[in-house]
Amino acid sequence: MSEPVTIALDAMGSDGGALPIVEGAAQVSREDNGLHVLLVGHEAELSEHLAQQRYDPERLAIVHADGVVPMDCKPAEALDAEPACSILTAAALVRDGDADALVSAGNTGAVILSAARTFERLPGIRRAALAAVYPTEARHGPRDDPFALMLDVGATLNCNAEDLVGFAVMGSAYSRIISDIGRPRVALLSNGSEPSKGTPSIVEAHALLKDNSAVEFVGNVEGLDIPRGTVDVVVCEGFLGNVVLKMLEGVSEVVSDIARDAYARKFLWRLGLTMLSQGLRQIRTMTDWKQYGGAPVLGFDKPVIKAHGRSNGRAIRNALKVAGKAVDKDLAGEIRRGLS
Amino acid sequence: MSEPVTIALDAMGSDGGALPIVEGAAQVSREDNGLHVLLVGHEAELSEHLAQQRYDPERLAIVHADGVVPMDCKPAEALDAEPACSILTAAALVRDGDADALVSAGNTGAVILSAARTFERLPGIRRAALAAVYPTEARHGPRDDPFALMLDVGATLNCNAEDLVGFAVMGSAYSRIISDIGRPRVALLSNGSEPSKGTPSIVEAHALLKDNSAVEFVGNVEGLDIPRGTVDVVVCEGFLGNVVLKMLEGVSEVVSDIARDAYARKFLWRLGLTMLSQGLRQIRTMTDWKQYGGAPVLGFDKPVIKAHGRSNGRAIRNALKVAGKAVDKDLAGEIRRGLS
Repeated sequence: MSEPVTIALDAMGSDGGALPIVEGAAQVSREDNGLHVLLVGHEAELSEHLAQQRYDPERLAIVHADGVVPMDCKPAEALDAEPACSILTAAALVRDGDADALVSAGNTGAVILSAARTFERLPGIRRAALAAVYPTEARHGPRDDPFALMLDVGATLNCNAEDLVGFAVMGSAYSRIISDIGRPRVALLSNGSEPSKGTPSIVEAHALLKDNSAVEFVGNVEGLDIPRGTVDVVVCEGFLGNVVLKMLEGVSEVVSDIARDAYARKFLWRLGLTMLSQGLRQIRTMTDWKQYGGAPVLGFDKPVIKAHGRSNGRAIRNALKVAGKAVDKDLAGEIRRGLS
Repeated sequence: MSEPVTIALDAMGSDGGALPIVEGAAQVSREDNGLHVLLVGHEAELSEHLAQQRYDPERLAIVHADGVVPMDCKPAEALDAEPACSILTAAALVRDGDADALVSAGNTGAVILSAARTFERLPGIRRAALAAVYPTEARHGPRDDPFALMLDVGATLNCNAEDLVGFAVMGSAYSRIISDIGRPRVALLSNGSEPSKGTPSIVEAHALLKDNSAVEFVGNVEGLDIPRGTVDVVVCEGFLGNVVLKMLEGVSEVVSDIARDAYARKFLWRLGLTMLSQGLRQIRTMTDWKQYGGAPVLGFDKPVIKAHGRSNGRAIRNALKVAGKAVDKDLAGEIRRGLS
């Protein structure tokens, strides 16, 4: 990276407690990748965890914050009740220029709402979106990633055509910058490939995107194309994206339940599974992919990465690196250019 | 069955041609199950196929129809152009009392539209629904079926709360009658389990279903619950159901692609797969389930079963038996009672 980038890392409120967050931050500090990390949370607890780690104190510091937003709460109420909590404190560090990007493994709604309350929305973006990387059969980009991007998978309902176009531009910019795909193929998720298929918003967005030179729009895709990975970026409203993404999680759970069951039940199956281990790895990817990196919250003037609530140290490290790349390659500027 | 039931079976327009349709009909005629079948289509072609089969002429007859609706056409235009086509002729036989139920493996849109043009909608039903049986991890009902029902998976957009309640009542009645589940568990598909989650229609339907004693309504389910099979009947609007169902098909294709690839590539994997065959059967079910039976078109005064376009003889036989059961147990009456 060209110059040091500082990430504000919310260390509190993940499912696994602060330890994996601290581990990920410590690991990043030991790598010479130009990243500085501000660990935001209860100083005493974080210091204790940090004392067990090898880390570079030049690149890692603790910023104290009182209060945590728990996983099972109403985000708006929790943020109102705890104005000095770790996620709002971390966001304020970014707003005030002490850090360049925000990473959190905490409550998703609270992360998005903290960003909405603290950052500016990019011009032309009416609604921010949560994007998710998910596993596909097809490979994508110069590194042959077995993943595609879907957005919105957050909470948007009744998106209009402009919202969907905004998602397409943001997803395209993210995929270009983070996955190094020159012209990411972008599609609208609908119930048929014809331009006339889908809700009125989808039909109108289709017409708008066809004439948008900033996006490599390839038309509508159907449910079948999601696991196949026909395109690099799948655009839909949050309600649909939420159902689809959770269903993918459910399918991967069922597949691994069945495999585990087979493993436990019979010696020959156990042997078979062992022999199949390489072949099954592709299927396993589906079970574990949520651990890999982070889900970007797109639409604000600052990069925001939501790491999975059950992230281990490696996943936190990946999320920090993705956030660093978003700063370094100016994700917000790329989205601005796509919208203008 | 109490008394003979006659099924009008559209023999034309499936992906596999008339032969598997004729095979399924012939097989049913050889079984003593009270079913009579009227094979509707080109008499010469059907007679030729039938001459190769063992069948009971007391229980199987051909009704000639000119014209076929092809798979890739606009249903409305095709039906207008071919008023004497096999699907409309078969529907007319049911309307006129010459048959009790309609089965077709042809163009889905044309089957639904033929029913809409020929039959009466049940009182209280504003929109008919296409329901689909799909594989789940959990077992359902007295026969431990590894399948649940989802509706609508057809073409409804912008369903209102009453539409969704109608789907819930129809799905519940179908599940009770065809799967013999006494009180089928019914849920709305949403982006969270809380009653406040989802579109305004979903929120309103939730409130209406909570007070509806005809349906064992258990609340909202999420995407995760679809493959798990938490409930017996999943209710959603057609756009969402279409995307979800096609995605399940896509996932099953990807899983079997990976398995086939592993099988081809390496001897040890091949051996492993052979050893795993019993364990993998559960996963395979997902690949093949569309062959098993039919998808009911619900909301009309006559039973309509849409068999898969690639049905083999066994799938046609199953669809005929399901149609017979729907007549015998008065599916339309059961739905009427649920709505009143």
